[in-house]
Order: sequence, then C-alpha cells, then structure tokens
Amino acid sequence: MKKEEEKNNSLTHLDEEGNPSMVDVGGKSVTKRIAIAQTVISFPKEVALQIQGQDNATKKGSIFQTAMIAGIMGTKKTSDLIPLCHPLPLDKCNIEMEWSSETEVTIKSTASVTSKTGVEMEALTGASVAALTIYDMCKALSHDIVIKETKLMHKTGGKSDFNR
Amino acid sequence: MKKEEEKNNSLTHLDEEGNPSMVDVGGKSVTKRIAIAQTVISFPKEVALQIQGQDNATKKGSIFQTAMIAGIMGTKKTSDLIPLCHPLPLDKCNIEMEWSSETEVTIKSTASVTSKTGVEMEALTGASVAALTIYDMCKALSHDIVIKETKLMHKTGGKSDFNR
Amino acid sequence: MKKEEEKNNSLTHLDEEGNPSMVDVGGKSVTKRIAIAQTVISFPKEVALQIQGQDNATKKGSIFQTAMIAGIMGTKKTSDLIPLCHPLPLDKCNIEMEWSSETEVTIKSTASVTSKTGVEMEALTGASVAALTIYDMCKALSHDIVIKETKLMHKTGGKSDFNR
Amino acid sequence: MKKEEEKNNSLTHLDEEGNPSMVDVGGKSVTKRIAIAQTVISFPKEVALQIQGQDNATKKGSIFQTAMIAGIMGTKKTSDLIPLCHPLPLDKCNIEMEWSSETEVTIKSTASVTSKTGVEMEALTGASVAALTIYDMCKALSHDIVIKETKLMHKTGGKSDFNR
Amino acid sequence: MKKEEEKNNSLTHLDEEGNPSMVDVGGKSVTKRIAIAQTVISFPKEVALQIQGQDNATKKGSIFQTAMIAGIMGTKKTSDLIPLCHPLPLDKCNIEMEWSSETEVTIKSTASVTSKTGVEMEALTGASVAALTIYDMCKALSHDIVIKETKLMHKTGGKSDFNR
Amino acid sequence: MKKEEEKNNSLTHLDEEGNPSMVDVGGKSVTKRIAIAQTVISFPKEVALQIQGQDNATKKGSIFQTAMIAGIMGTKKTSDLIPLCHPLPLDKCNIEMEWSSETEVTIKSTASVTSKTGVEMEALTGASVAALTIYDMCKALSHDIVIKETKLMHKTGGKSDFNR
Repeated sequence: MKKEEEKNNSLTHLDEEGNPSMVDVGGKSVTKRIAIAQTVISFPKEVALQIQGQDNATKKGSIFQTAMIAGIMGTKKTSDLIPLCHPLPLDKCNIEMEWSSETEVTIKSTASVTSKTGVEMEALTGASVAALTIYDMCKALSHDIVIKETKLMHKTGGKSDFNR
Repeated sequence: MKKEEEKNNSLTHLDEEGNPSMVDVGGKSVTKRIAIAQTVISFPKEVALQIQGQDNATKKGSIFQTAMIAGIMGTKKTSDLIPLCHPLPLDKCNIEMEWSSETEVTIKSTASVTSKTGVEMEALTGASVAALTIYDMCKALSHDIVIKETKLMHKTGGKSDFNR
Repeated sequence: MKKEEEKNNSLTHLDEEGNPSMVDVGGKSVTKRIAIAQTVISFPKEVALQIQGQDNATKKGSIFQTAMIAGIMGTKKTSDLIPLCHPLPLDKCNIEMEWSSETEVTIKSTASVTSKTGVEMEALTGASVAALTIYDMCKALSHDIVIKETKLMHKTGGKSDFNR
Repeated sequence: MKKEEEKNNSLTHLDEEGNPSMVDVGGKSVTKRIAIAQTVISFPKEVALQIQGQDNATKKGSIFQTAMIAGIMGTKKTSDLIPLCHPLPLDKCNIEMEWSSETEVTIKSTASVTSKTGVEMEALTGASVAALTIYDMCKALSHDIVIKETKLMHKTGGKSDFNR
Repeated sequence: MKKEEEKNNSLTHLDEEGNPSMVDVGGKSVTKRIAIAQTVISFPKEVALQIQGQDNATKKGSIFQTAMIAGIMGTKKTSDLIPLCHPLPLDKCNIEMEWSSETEVTIKSTASVTSKTGVEMEALTGASVAALTIYDMCKALSHDIVIKETKLMHKTGGKSDFNR
Repeated sequence: MKKEEEKNNSLTHLDEEGNPSMVDVGGKSVTKRIAIAQTVISFPKEVALQIQGQDNATKKGSIFQTAMIAGIMGTKKTSDLIPLCHPLPLDKCNIEMEWSSETEVTIKSTASVTSKTGVEMEALTGASVAALTIYDMCKALSHDIVIKETKLMHKTGGKSDFNR
C-alpha cells in the first residue's frame, strides 16, 4: 500500500533513467471509466455579439456544430497526438457548448471507455480541438480571442475519483 | 477597398447560407508568413517543485523534450484536426518552454510558411498539443493542473500584422 | 420492447437537442459481428476491354490488388473518416473483386469484429475506398467511369440481422 | 503528339512491368485546377420523410452539416487513402447537399488547387465520405439506404477539360 | 495437429487465390503477448564521436529522446502502415537505446498487448521508426549512416515462443 | 563558405540549447530533388524457396505488390512519422523489388520533389515500410527473417550530391 502511494506521487511517464516511457496497463483491471473536461473561449464583446447574431440566423449552429464534430474526431485522435497515451476503444465521446456569459463559450467534453486506463487526456484533447476550431472559424473577426482554463472537471472508474 | 473591409469583418468560414466552408485561397499571393502562439500551464506548488526537481536530474528535460516533439508533430497535423484549415507546406515550426514563474510553464510555439494563407492555427495547435502532453506526463501527480490562456502573440505576412 | 422499437426508429446520432452525438455503446454486449457491403464500378465498354487486356498480362492483377490493399487500409481508417463511428479492434477485413458483367466490376467488402457495435460502416468504407482506387488507376483512360450502388448486403451479430 | 495520345490512352498508374507506380508530375506545369464530383444517396420513402422532418426541427441541418465537415476532412485525406494520389496543397474544397427528389439527396463536392496535377480524386473522395457519413447517421432507421452514382461532373485546368 | 502445422508453414496473408488477406483472429484466444525487436544504426567513426560529444552536453539526450518518442508513436501507427496488421489496444510500448560499440547504437523496442494476435510487427516498426529518426537528426553530418539488422529478438504469448 | 562548411558539419536538428528543432527551409531555393534508398531483406533458405514458389503461382506478385503499395503510402507518411521532417508535395515515389540473391530481396525506393528540402528520409522510410510489410506477410513461415542494410544510395538537387 505504501508502494501504491509512492507510485501515485511519481512521474509515471518517465522510467528510472528519466526517459519517456508508456505506463504498462497490462495488469490493470478493466473498468468503466468516464472523464469530463472543460475549456472556455473568450471573445471581445463586439465579436461575441456578431457570432451570437449569426448563430440566430436560419442555419443556426454552424460554428458550434463544426466545433462539436472536430472535437469528437479530435478525441478519437488522442493517442495519435499525445506520445505516451494508449490507444483506447472509446464507448462514447461528445462535446457540448453554451454561452456561459456574454462573451464566453464554455465547452464541455465527455469521454468514456471500458478499459484498463482512463480517458482524461481524451476529454481534454476533445475540448482543446473544439476550442481551436471555434477560434479558427472566428479569427477573421479578431485575434483577441483567448482559449482559457482547459481543465479536468470529473473522473471516475480509476484508482481514485476526481471532482472539481 | 470597402469590400475588403467587409470581408475582414465577416465569418469567412461560413458561406452565404451559413454552411461551413473552406476559404478559397486560390487568388491570394504567396508570401512569407510567421505566427507565434503562447500557452501557459499552471501547477499546484508541490507539483511544480517535484517536476523542477526531476528536471534537474541526470536525464534532464525529458518532460519538456517530449512535449516539444509532440508540439512539433501536432503543428504538422493542424489541417487534419481543424476542419477548415488548409494543408500547408511548413517551412519551420518549433516549440520553446520555460518556467515563467514558480508554478507556471510558458510554452511558445512558432510556425512559418511561404504560402497563400497564414499559420496562426498551426502555432496555436502546436502550443495546445505541447501543453496537453505536459499535462499527460504530470497527471499522475495531480489533476489540479490547468492549461491557461492559449492565444496568438504575433503574426506577420498576411493582410494585416498582429502583435499582442 | 416498445421502447426498443422506438429507439430503432430514431436518429440515434443526434441528441435531444439535435446535435451530433456518438452513440454510447458502454452498456451493449460484446458479440461477434460481421458485415458485408458491395459496390459496383462501371466502365465504358472500350475501357473495360483495355483493363481486362492489361489484367491478363504477366503481372496480372495490379489494379485489383492495389485496390484490395487500399480497401483494407481504408476499412481500418473508418473511425478516422466517419465522425460518429467508434474505433474498433477489427478481427478481419478483406476485399474481393470480380468482373460481374462485360463492363462492371463488383467489389465485395467484408469486416468482422468481436465488439459492442457493428461494422457496417467499416464494410461500406472499405468498398468505397477500393472503388475510388480503381477509378484513380483507370481515370487516364476515361472519366466516364461511375461508382454505382454502394450498399449493405449482409449483417449479423447485432440487435437484428440484415440480408439483401 | 502521337505519343501524347498514346499516353492518354494507357494505364498511367502501372509501370512497364505492370507494377503500381505513381505518375511523375515533376515536369508538369502548375495551373489552376478545379474538379466537381457528385454522388446521390437514396432512402426508402418513410426514412426520407423522417429525416426531412428532423431537418426542419430547431437545430436543423445537423445531419447535413456533419456530413459536410466529414466530406471536407475526407477530401483532405485523399492522398492518405488512395495509394497513388499525390499529396496536394488544396486551395479550397467544399461540400453542398440538397434533396434532389422526394427520396434522394444529391451531394456536390468541389475541390481546387494550383498545382501540377488535378483534384478529381479529391472531389470524388469528398463526395464519398460525405455520403458514407449520411448513411452512418441514418442507418438506425434503415439499411435500405443506397449510395448511387458517384461520378465526376466537371474538371478544368489539366490537359483536357471534362464536362458531363 | 497436422493441419495446424501446415497452417504454420503457409503464407497466411494470402488467400487461396493468392490475394492479400488479413488473417481472421476472431476465433483466437486473448492472451498476454510480448515482442522485442532490435535494430542497429552504424555511423562513420568521426560522426559517432561528434554525436557522443553532443550527447554529453548540457541538454544531453536530445537525439535519443526524440527517437524514443518517434519510435513509441510509430509503434502505435503500425496497423496504419502495414496493410494486413490488425489495430491493437497496446498495453505498453517503449524504446531503449545505447551505444553498443564505438560506432553503433543498438535500439531495443518492446511492445505488449492482451489480445488475440501478437505484436511482432509493432516492435519491429517502433525500432525502424526510431532508427529513421536518429538517421534524420544526424544526416547533416554524413550520409554514410546505415541502419543494420532489424530483427525480432523475442516473442511470447502466441502459438509458439521465439528467442534469438 | 567557411560558415557553410561548419553548418554542414553540425547537428542541424538541435538548436543552440540542444533542443530538437526543425530546420528552417524558408530561405532555401526550390530545386528538383531526387533520392534513392535501398534495403535488403534476408530469408532462411527454405523460406526463400517457399516465397519464390508462391510468387510464380497464378496470382503472382501478391507479396511484392502489397509491399510496393505499403512502401508508397509509407513514403507519403514520412513527415507524420519522423518528428523533424517537413511535409513535402512529392512529385513521385515508387518502390521496386527483386531477388538479388537466392535468399535476399533488394528493395529500391525512389522519391522526388520540387521543393526547398530533400527527400532522403522519404526514400528511406518508403524502403523501411516496404521491408516491414514483406516481413509481416512472410512471418508465419519464420521469424529468422532480417531486414539488413537500409541506406541512402543516391541524392541530387541539394547542396551536395551523394552517390554510394
């Protein structure tokens, strides 16, 4: 148990010589694991108004829907992007968005898997790719857009749960 | 000129019906374009100390170097991740990192190209992937890590320059 | 049972708000699933004769074999291409081809998996990529080539079987 | 001129020994090239009605918009999918869709590039991936959906134009 | 048993007609499988000295660490690179390197999985990509670098073990 | 000129601090560049005989043709595999193979581009992926197969030519 704790507090992605190394999940048990990450994208006020105006037009939701699709596809690319992540057979991932203030959109990214390791990085990557896609679609209006506070909100199914 | 201005202020990634659409760069001129983006990753104090300790060990730099490589490779994947980005023959991209405060690492991502369109999204994507990689390598220590303030710092070679 | 039927008849890839959403397969049972898809590629008569002539030459089969390989590799890329498809650990996929008439090649694509969700999209994607590859290899002869009737032929292992 | 014609009528993707071989575009001139491809997806009548009903709901267009994004991203993956296609720096690609009859959706895929070789395969691949995505999103309603008649409609900028 | 033996001695990646075909692993049992591959990269003496000198500098290990990361990421891409390889949910992969003589670096690549088929190709691909990366990083010094002797060293968990 | 020489003799893929860094090709001139790489794959005698026997059967060439396709597709993935390689718009790549002795197959990989940087890594990667594919297709016969001597044979169009 002591050992477990120690391992918990060490950089598991480096081997004894300090070289980068994938964690061996071969001996871990298969459980249902869920992770939720969040990011916030902040616009100058006039840009926010312009996007909200567009968003109420006939084909509403194009920016958000494009970012949702990009976020879902980005989630599936996590192990291709992050060197030491394991390839995982995701049960589900999805991306939700809403205007959380006059000038900010909050992106919530959820991933789940029944596997030996968790999906925190998948949820975080999905949120980041969705935010970058919104940035891309709005950057003709302004470069004063900022992606703020990408973080894990919730995690269950692993050694310890996490809730923010 | 009026038209140019109008275009400057519209959502160029949506067509007249509001559908997602790639901007046609066919008529734009080939220029040298550079973009620099930045992100900051913030750690709880004890985690920051632990990483800095490891970082001074014999094989120093493993975490940063892994993140640099991931960021460079992520930069090259931008058009694969962001739906309406053009595939671009990058001249160069690179990722730099440093402890900008006791508990924060600042990641600077630079991309350049000689092409018809800019590399803002490439620089931003590289910064994000590098930050996600650092998160991944340190998450065994804590999930109170936050990726803060991903933003464009500098851009030259397009219709208008940008400097923060 | 009523509910099951209702679910069967709804657009499972949209959530209640109409946004794109991956189906959660976390609660579904792992079964052996097989799907077979088919497509037909049709050539102008003189082009068909030319290909058949080449195909009987010493290194026979180059066009078909290139398309088989592309189809197999395309099958493995399904979840990378189709936004709401799950990544699946395929047990097997393969592509067969034959001249089904004087001017038409029929491509049969089979995929199987032991998993929580089916491989219809994998079989269909494999068939499409194989057909596109044949088109590419023959397009110097004519652009009057048409990919016709890509469809599912057979499916077992899920909630309900399908046979055409 | 004779030679040109002969080359025009041969399988350029096979070398003299009949092995698969990428065409050398090194000596070809850089021109503006555009290609338009089309595919048609056909639904059973009750399925078509159900989709059209959904499509008029509040978040209208989710299926089409998901397929547009997938088609654009698929267009960019053409050289990754089709073995002998050259990687090309696309100027633009986009996907349009409309109900062309009570039970059929017509997908129009356009690609353009300023390069040494054409984008027919890019346009065709974009159309196919968009069609497969629509199939995926509607398959819970029926497997009697058929992707019909994927073909090139228009091509300019190469040795010879093509119009259907 | 006779049959098993025969199968053991045949080209399992070709079907009865000699066409390329993925082996069906659907009926095989899930076991823990490990494979270790090795490659050697050989430098001209003066180049070896130069690299070793650099390697002892302050940020030591950059070349090796870049190659380790590339090798790990390459291992994860095996089924994307080798046409008839199955996509596998790796438990772990890693790359080790050391100067095995004055002028040679030996790269050891390990992969493990709990699955129906082995990871020999994953280990071999990881070793090859790591070696190519070292070549790339040193090629400004000389093109007399040679990648020698890529081979399997060890394999357990399948029908028969292998040890060199 | 002195400087040029110095640059020629330094590790261009590391910056002054020893961190991995992509070479900036922005200022280099666009020239026609060709590279040829070679690898040799060696089989136990009885395995060589078995493959040669198969290779003369009706669908002859399946193993070689699969490896050619994989090698061509691998060449196109070079910048995705090797961290510091630039994405390049290849003019052509191809793979040739022949039995160079009773027990060895020699793989010749050629790549060409009209660009600011060379295609040595593309040629080497294509050869390696082709060799790994042959290994994969023959490994059911024996694991005493060895990939030997992957090296550059020829290079033109850059600062200096190379011929082995």
